[in-house]
Amino acid sequence: MDCVKVALLGCGTVGTQVARLIGEQSKDFTARIGAPLELCGIAVRDASVQRDSSIDTSLLTENPSEIIAQADIVVELIGGIEPARTYILEAFSHGASVVTGNKALLAAHGPELYEAAAKAQVDLYYEASVAGAIPVVYGLRESLAGDRITHVLGIVNGTTNYILDEMAVNGLSFDEALKQAQDLGYAEADPTADVDGLDAAAKCAILASLAFHTRACIDDVHVQGIRDITAHDIASAADAGYVLKLVAHAKRRGEEIELSVGPTLIPLEHPLASVHGSFNAVVVEAEAADRLMFYGRGAGGAPTASAVLSDVVAAASHKVNGGHAPRELIYGNAQIVSVDDMQARFQLELLVRDEIGVLTNVTGIFARYGVSISAVSQTNSREAKGICRLIVRTHEVKRRDLHAALEELSHVNFVDSVARVMTVEEN
Amino acid sequence: MDCVKVALLGCGTVGTQVARLIGEQSKDFTARIGAPLELCGIAVRDASVQRDSSIDTSLLTENPSEIIAQADIVVELIGGIEPARTYILEAFSHGASVVTGNKALLAAHGPELYEAAAKAQVDLYYEASVAGAIPVVYGLRESLAGDRITHVLGIVNGTTNYILDEMAVNGLSFDEALKQAQDLGYAEADPTADVDGLDAAAKCAILASLAFHTRACIDDVHVQGIRDITAHDIASAADAGYVLKLVAHAKRRGEEIELSVGPTLIPLEHPLASVHGSFNAVVVEAEAADRLMFYGRGAGGAPTASAVLSDVVAAASHKVNGGHAPRELIYGNAQIVSVDDMQARFQLELLVRDEIGVLTNVTGIFARYGVSISAVSQTNSREAKGICRLIVRTHEVKRRDLHAALEELSHVNFVDSVARVMTVEEN
Repeated sequence: MDCVKVALLGCGTVGTQVARLIGEQSKDFTARIGAPLELCGIAVRDASVQRDSSIDTSLLTENPSEIIAQADIVVELIGGIEPARTYILEAFSHGASVVTGNKALLAAHGPELYEAAAKAQVDLYYEASVAGAIPVVYGLRESLAGDRITHVLGIVNGTTNYILDEMAVNGLSFDEALKQAQDLGYAEADPTADVDGLDAAAKCAILASLAFHTRACIDDVHVQGIRDITAHDIASAADAGYVLKLVAHAKRRGEEIELSVGPTLIPLEHPLASVHGSFNAVVVEAEAADRLMFYGRGAGGAPTASAVLSDVVAAASHKVNGGHAPRELIYGNAQIVSVDDMQARFQLELLVRDEIGVLTNVTGIFARYGVSISAVSQTNSREAKGICRLIVRTHEVKRRDLHAALEELSHVNFVDSVARVMTVEEN
Repeated sequence: MDCVKVALLGCGTVGTQVARLIGEQSKDFTARIGAPLELCGIAVRDASVQRDSSIDTSLLTENPSEIIAQADIVVELIGGIEPARTYILEAFSHGASVVTGNKALLAAHGPELYEAAAKAQVDLYYEASVAGAIPVVYGLRESLAGDRITHVLGIVNGTTNYILDEMAVNGLSFDEALKQAQDLGYAEADPTADVDGLDAAAKCAILASLAFHTRACIDDVHVQGIRDITAHDIASAADAGYVLKLVAHAKRRGEEIELSVGPTLIPLEHPLASVHGSFNAVVVEAEAADRLMFYGRGAGGAPTASAVLSDVVAAASHKVNGGHAPRELIYGNAQIVSVDDMQARFQLELLVRDEIGVLTNVTGIFARYGVSISAVSQTNSREAKGICRLIVRTHEVKRRDLHAALEELSHVNFVDSVARVMTVEEN
C-alpha cells in the first residue's frame, strides 16, 4: 500500500486538530504505520466558512460520500445519530475502516455498527467516544483481555466535575458554577446532556459493553443528574470525609450487570477523589489485575484528537500490515438489573423531630425493610425549631428496600422530610 | 489454527497465576482469540518441588528447549539476563512470539531482542516488565501512537513507595519501614535493587525507549535511591505542601532526553501524590493529549499475570487472525543528556550560621552560578547553638550549576553543611 487515505467527516474543534496533527506529524506517522497517511478530504456542512490556517481548504467538500468512496479510513466527527450512522455504514460498504468519537451513536446503535464492521472485515475504533484522551477503551478492549472485569466506575463528564469541584473548592452555588463553566466554554448553552447525566450515561453504556462483553445501551442506565445538588450537600459530604462526584457505575453481579450514573460520595482516599476540574478518570476493577485507574483530559480539541489519531494509526497499521482490531465479543449473557434491584450503599439525610426515641423509631423502620445501617449521626445544627438533621449511612442494600423504608418514613409524624439520598462508594 | 500453544518458562508467583488463569478462563480466551489457548508445558528448575494445586504437574519439565520447540507463544518469567535471553532468542528462531516480564533483560538487551523479533516476524510483548498490571507499555506503544510524548514520570517501584508511605503516614524510620516491607513480602531480603533505585531505573529505560522511540538502557539513567531519607526529610516535605516519592523521570528537551530516578518532592495536588502503599502510577505528558495517568498494582502474582495474559491474548490473536505487534520504532535521534547537564527544580537544606547577612551571602553565591531561587525559608528550630536551617527552592537549573554553587557554599565559613538536595516536581 503506497499510502493510507483518510477522509475526515466534520471539521469542528476536534476535526481541526486531527487535520493539523496529520500534517505536522506526517514523518512520525509514516514510521509508525509503514506507509504515509494522506488526508484525502474533509467533509463540512459549509465549505465557505473561515477555517483555522492549518486546514488545507482545497480538501474541503460538502459531499461526504465523495471522499468516503476514496478512503481507506473514515474519521467520523460529525456527532449525533444521523447522518453519522449512514456515513459509517457507507464507509464499511466501501471497505473503509472507521474511527469515531460519537458516543451518542455507539450508545444507541453500537451492536449494529460492530456487526457491520465485522461483516465488512474492517475496523471500528472509538477511543475518543469515552473520556477524551484517556485510553480506557483500549484498556478494556485490549489491555484487560486476559482478565475478568468486575466493576467500572468513572468520572466521565468534565463539565459536571468542574461544576462540583468549583462548588466544593470555591464555595459556588450550582447556578454560579454552571454559569462559570459556560463562560469558560466547558458547558454548552443548553447544559442538559451534561448536568442531567445523559452524556455520562452514554459513556457508561459503552464502557459496560466493553467490560462485560455484552450489549448495553443508554436506556439500560439508571440516571440521576446534579441539578439539585446544593452547597450544603457538598459541605456535609466533606464533613463526613467524602467528596461528591458524578460517577458512572457499571458493576457485574454474577451473570447480571448494574448500570447507573449519579451523584456519589467518594471517600477522600479513593483515587477518584483527587480528580479535579475538567479532568476525567475511570477506575476498573478486575479479578486478577485488582484496581486500575486511567486519568486524563476528558475533552478538548487536541486531547480528543490524540485519541482519534491513536485509532487512526492502529487502523492504518492493519491496512498496511494485516490483522484487525479486536472484535466486539458479545459472548456474555448478562441481564441488566432493574433499578429496583440495584444494590448500593446509600447516605440519606432526614429532618426529624428533636425528641427522645426518634432514633429508635427511625432505625426500627429501616430494619423492618431489611435496610442495614452502618452509621447514623445527628448534626448539631437545628434546621428549625424542634427539628434536627439525621445522616444515615447504609450497608449495601437494594434500592427497592430503601425506597420502601423511605416511603414509610415519609408518612410517620416524627419525620419532617427526607432531604437527600446519594450512593456511597467504598475505598 | 486449531489451538495456540503456550510454553511457560518459570512457575513462581506470577507463573503460577498465569497457568491458573489460562485454565480457569479458557472459554473467555477462546472467544477473544478465535481459537483455544493450550498450555503445552511449564519449564521449572526442579520439577519435584511441591506446587500450587492449580498446576497440572504432567506439564512440568526441566528442559525448556523441549517446550519452546512446540510453542506458538513462549511466556518467559524466569527473570535475569541469562538464560532468559538465550531462551527468548531460541523461541524467535522457532517462530514463536514471546511475552516477557523481564525488565532487567529489556533494560540491558532490549534493542537486540526487538530486532530479533522483527527479523523473525514474530511479536515481543512485555507489558508486565513495567508497573505490573498497569497497561502503560500498551499506552505508550499503541494508545499514544498519534501523539508526541514530552515527559514520563512514574512511581514504578512498589517497595520504595510502601516504605516512603509508611514513613510519611505512620512515622516509621527508614529501617523500620524496610523491615515491615520485608515482613509483608513487599521487599526482598536483599533490598538493594529496590531501595537504591535500580529496579526503577530499568523501568525508566524501558519507558523512555517506548516514549521517545530511541534506545535507552539502564546505564543512561542517573540514579539516586532512598536509603538515606529520614523522617525529618518527609516531615519538612509535608510542611512545605509536598510528599516525597521515588520517581522515575524521562523527559524530552528538544532532540535530547534526560533520564533519572530519585527522591522527588511532589506537590499534594499532583496526581502522583495520592499514590499510596505498594501501588504504582505513571504520568505521561504528551503534546496533544496533555497529562494522562495510569494507576494500579505494580507487583503481585495475579496483577502481573493479568498483564502477561493481555499480551498472550494479543500475540495469540495475531497468530490466529494475522497482523503483528507494533514494531519498536527507533527513528528518534535522541541524545542522552549527561548528569551535569540535566535540569530540574531543586530543594536543598543548608545549615548556616544564625547571623545577619547570611541570607544575602547565600543567595549571592547561588546567583553567581546562575542558580535562580524561587523560595527561601528559615525554619524556627535551631539545630545547634548559633546554627539555623535554610530551605531553598530553585527554578529549573542545571545540576552542574547547582553543584558548583553548593561546592562553594560548602567552603564558606557561614555555612555549616548542605543537608539534603532533592528534585521538586511542579503541579
